[in-house]
Amino acid sequence: MTTLGEIAVVSGARLRGGDTATVITGVASLDSAEAGQLSFLIHSRYRHYLPATRAAAVIVSPRDAAACPAPALIADNPHIAYARAAALFELVAEPQTGIHPTAWVDPGARIAENVWIGPHCVVEAGATIETGVNVGPHCVIGEQTLIGAASRLMARVTVCHRVRLGRRVLVHPGAVIGSDGFGLALEQDGRWLRVPQLGSVRIGDDVEIGANTTIDRGALEDTVIEDGVKLDNQIQVAHNVHIGAHSALAGCVGIAGSARIGRHCMLGGGVGVAGHLTIADRVQVTGMSLVAQSITQSGVYSSGLAVEPNRLWNRISARLRRLDELFRRLTALEKTIKRQDGSV
Amino acid sequence: MTTLGEIAVVSGARLRGGDTATVITGVASLDSAEAGQLSFLIHSRYRHYLPATRAAAVIVSPRDAAACPAPALIADNPHIAYARAAALFELVAEPQTGIHPTAWVDPGARIAENVWIGPHCVVEAGATIETGVNVGPHCVIGEQTLIGAASRLMARVTVCHRVRLGRRVLVHPGAVIGSDGFGLALEQDGRWLRVPQLGSVRIGDDVEIGANTTIDRGALEDTVIEDGVKLDNQIQVAHNVHIGAHSALAGCVGIAGSARIGRHCMLGGGVGVAGHLTIADRVQVTGMSLVAQSITQSGVYSSGLAVEPNRLWNRISARLRRLDELFRRLTALEKTIKRQDGSV
Amino acid sequence: MTTLGEIAVVSGARLRGGDTATVITGVASLDSAEAGQLSFLIHSRYRHYLPATRAAAVIVSPRDAAACPAPALIADNPHIAYARAAALFELVAEPQTGIHPTAWVDPGARIAENVWIGPHCVVEAGATIETGVNVGPHCVIGEQTLIGAASRLMARVTVCHRVRLGRRVLVHPGAVIGSDGFGLALEQDGRWLRVPQLGSVRIGDDVEIGANTTIDRGALEDTVIEDGVKLDNQIQVAHNVHIGAHSALAGCVGIAGSARIGRHCMLGGGVGVAGHLTIADRVQVTGMSLVAQSITQSGVYSSGLAVEPNRLWNRISARLRRLDELFRRLTALEKTIKRQDGSV
Repeated sequence: MTTLGEIAVVSGARLRGGDTATVITGVASLDSAEAGQLSFLIHSRYRHYLPATRAAAVIVSPRDAAACPAPALIADNPHIAYARAAALFELVAEPQTGIHPTAWVDPGARIAENVWIGPHCVVEAGATIETGVNVGPHCVIGEQTLIGAASRLMARVTVCHRVRLGRRVLVHPGAVIGSDGFGLALEQDGRWLRVPQLGSVRIGDDVEIGANTTIDRGALEDTVIEDGVKLDNQIQVAHNVHIGAHSALAGCVGIAGSARIGRHCMLGGGVGVAGHLTIADRVQVTGMSLVAQSITQSGVYSSGLAVEPNRLWNRISARLRRLDELFRRLTALEKTIKRQDGSV
Repeated sequence: MTTLGEIAVVSGARLRGGDTATVITGVASLDSAEAGQLSFLIHSRYRHYLPATRAAAVIVSPRDAAACPAPALIADNPHIAYARAAALFELVAEPQTGIHPTAWVDPGARIAENVWIGPHCVVEAGATIETGVNVGPHCVIGEQTLIGAASRLMARVTVCHRVRLGRRVLVHPGAVIGSDGFGLALEQDGRWLRVPQLGSVRIGDDVEIGANTTIDRGALEDTVIEDGVKLDNQIQVAHNVHIGAHSALAGCVGIAGSARIGRHCMLGGGVGVAGHLTIADRVQVTGMSLVAQSITQSGVYSSGLAVEPNRLWNRISARLRRLDELFRRLTALEKTIKRQDGSV
Repeated sequence: MTTLGEIAVVSGARLRGGDTATVITGVASLDSAEAGQLSFLIHSRYRHYLPATRAAAVIVSPRDAAACPAPALIADNPHIAYARAAALFELVAEPQTGIHPTAWVDPGARIAENVWIGPHCVVEAGATIETGVNVGPHCVIGEQTLIGAASRLMARVTVCHRVRLGRRVLVHPGAVIGSDGFGLALEQDGRWLRVPQLGSVRIGDDVEIGANTTIDRGALEDTVIEDGVKLDNQIQVAHNVHIGAHSALAGCVGIAGSARIGRHCMLGGGVGVAGHLTIADRVQVTGMSLVAQSITQSGVYSSGLAVEPNRLWNRISARLRRLDELFRRLTALEKTIKRQDGSV
């Protein structure tokens, strides 16, 4: 529970109408908000709900303010204002400090003040946990690893040895950071020999890493995730990948070894990126596409195919296999016509 | 070990021939079954093994009963009868109750009778564990979360705060339920601001959730998995997704935010579903297809392409890039012919 | 730190020039190596860095030895020689033996000499841990499971009941071995009934299993991973899959139930393999391809499509939907021409 005044301050929005002392009990969408709740208009497709909303106040852009029947919190970027305001309503466990009695912390680890190490955590020798870090239950922090100030590992996060996490990094359950890269050398007789992975992982500030996402350590130099990168769930980042600042990758993306992704890129769900290539800054790739070669220009790229009824799709894919033949038949026909035209 | 009579009762099949007291020691396929073992005929491709089987008894459909050389357990749905019978042979750990001494249970959690909390589990404040629940080793159950009666978390399952699981829910190792959705707002300068995820996850009765599958909590309202839904391993369910009752999703499926999947749907392995769309009831999507728009009719849909020899595929995909040109050339040719036809 | 002489012995390379007593402090690429560091030339694309390298010694093939400005370690297979030499520089925790006081080991488990069981591990009744095994923190080893000699579970690995791991198996964090297969029988009314998974998983010697990879137990017989198989991160192996010796599967591959993959195969990242099919030995499948039918000949296979600019791709995929029409129009045109040719 908070007040309209506090929301205005926190969100950075300008309050038009309404009383700063009004109590706000929660957040809801325009059509479901009830008395006492805050709402918001971010996407134009919900604009038609605005006139009839029962919300106690609505976060809106300047052009929607006039149509708002309730006190308006006016912001140039209503999505940002909403994100800030919503943080007031998030159920966050009381900040704790200390080390839970079931955690096992090596005497050679350096734990700063104002740190919480949760139940059943393991912190190995030489690890450094900076101030304000919150380590949820069942996390493992390897030897000589650094967890930067104010970072939060939600639960059951594994950070292997010698990894460096920046400040305010947020890691969701099941993520693995610093596992061995998939480095193999082929013996004469067809057996594989493991190549030791001597590098590590460096994660910048303000990075978010999703549930069950995996980030491998480098073969020789480090795998690098720059500041502000956001990784969704179940992403695989192979060894020596470099992801530029403020790029956002949706769920189930896979990045092969030594790929270099630019800054401010956006990869849709399930996208695959081949190894040893470079993607420029501000590139967007739509879902389930395959980046097989370097992309040198910013822009939107795709190769995903959307479903058709199965019977139709079977015909299409059978035809696709004969596409080369089709081109050749067409070319032959063109020649025939040209000859006829000449003869006519 | 059990008897033919008990198998008949449990499976609901009608015993024809044989002695209810016959001891059955195990289950095996028609061609590998030995004396004392139960077998079954479910798929017609195995029918040719029936006449020579050495099994002590065979679960068959009525039309296969005549050809069965052994005592027959006749069932209209032999697959269902087999599933029930096989449960008699499953190695299930002795039901235990109590809290393992290495588990950490907050004093503010409510644990019913007949519950087992395994080694190194963490149960946080305000959590409710109903009767008959079995929590395997290394599970984390968050604040105010409800685990419905007779549910089973196999091992190392993370259920975040305020999630609600129904009754008889089965969750496999490594699954994460209730992690933050991937909600981001874009700042003017290209940085991402995390949008608090205020919703939660509601899971119905009789749901199964596979190993390392992730289900994100809703941004504002809840992510919902209805009764009887079966999720295989490594599935990603984003925030505010709604999956209708009795749908089954195979491994590695990814569902983007706010997608709404109908009842009795079946999604093949690796299928991707884009966000903010609706899939009707009884829709099937074959493996590695992309659902990019709503599907309003039940039926089977596809967009996966099967492999060809690499050299052929390279020619096909090079041609594919020129498909627009091909259509234009064909259209031009048609016009020329038409003109010629007119002139002839 | 080691010496050039020791590197020559361990790598099996022949030292040409240089002093066996020279101290080597680390490993680096040709262009970044500094005095005292070992380097290597494996891929020809880095050959131009060789003449100017400052490395103390370089692992090279016989044909590159002449151009090497530093002492050369000459090997027919420089990649293998490098892999062996690099092991000298890997940070490996001091070998420990014993059971960490926070681990919980059932009195009915058999733990050999020279075994390390790390913090917060759980070893259930009847499990067997052979000599030289290293079990990192937070692992769960189920009832009657066997971990073969000299195997290493890095951290947070779950091995379910009755699984058998061979010798020198390396498993990375978050992997799940032996979870239930996705076996479902359809009831008359559209509900799913779980089919008990009575088989288990057998893993050969020298297998590597990546982070967050999942391997399901068999429905009746076992899921089998033969000797020397290498699985990258986030791979899903369904029930009753059989993977032949020395095959290597890259990240995010999904294998459906009862698929049988040959020996010495290589599957690229994100490849999907449908169920109940067979892939011959020495088959390679490039990234994000779908194997929908059996492959009977060794060779390279593909069906992945690479990205194009989104606007072009939209035109291509719209045309693709009309490919059947295109073939019919072309055929009609060919007939017309033939008729004209005849009439001319």
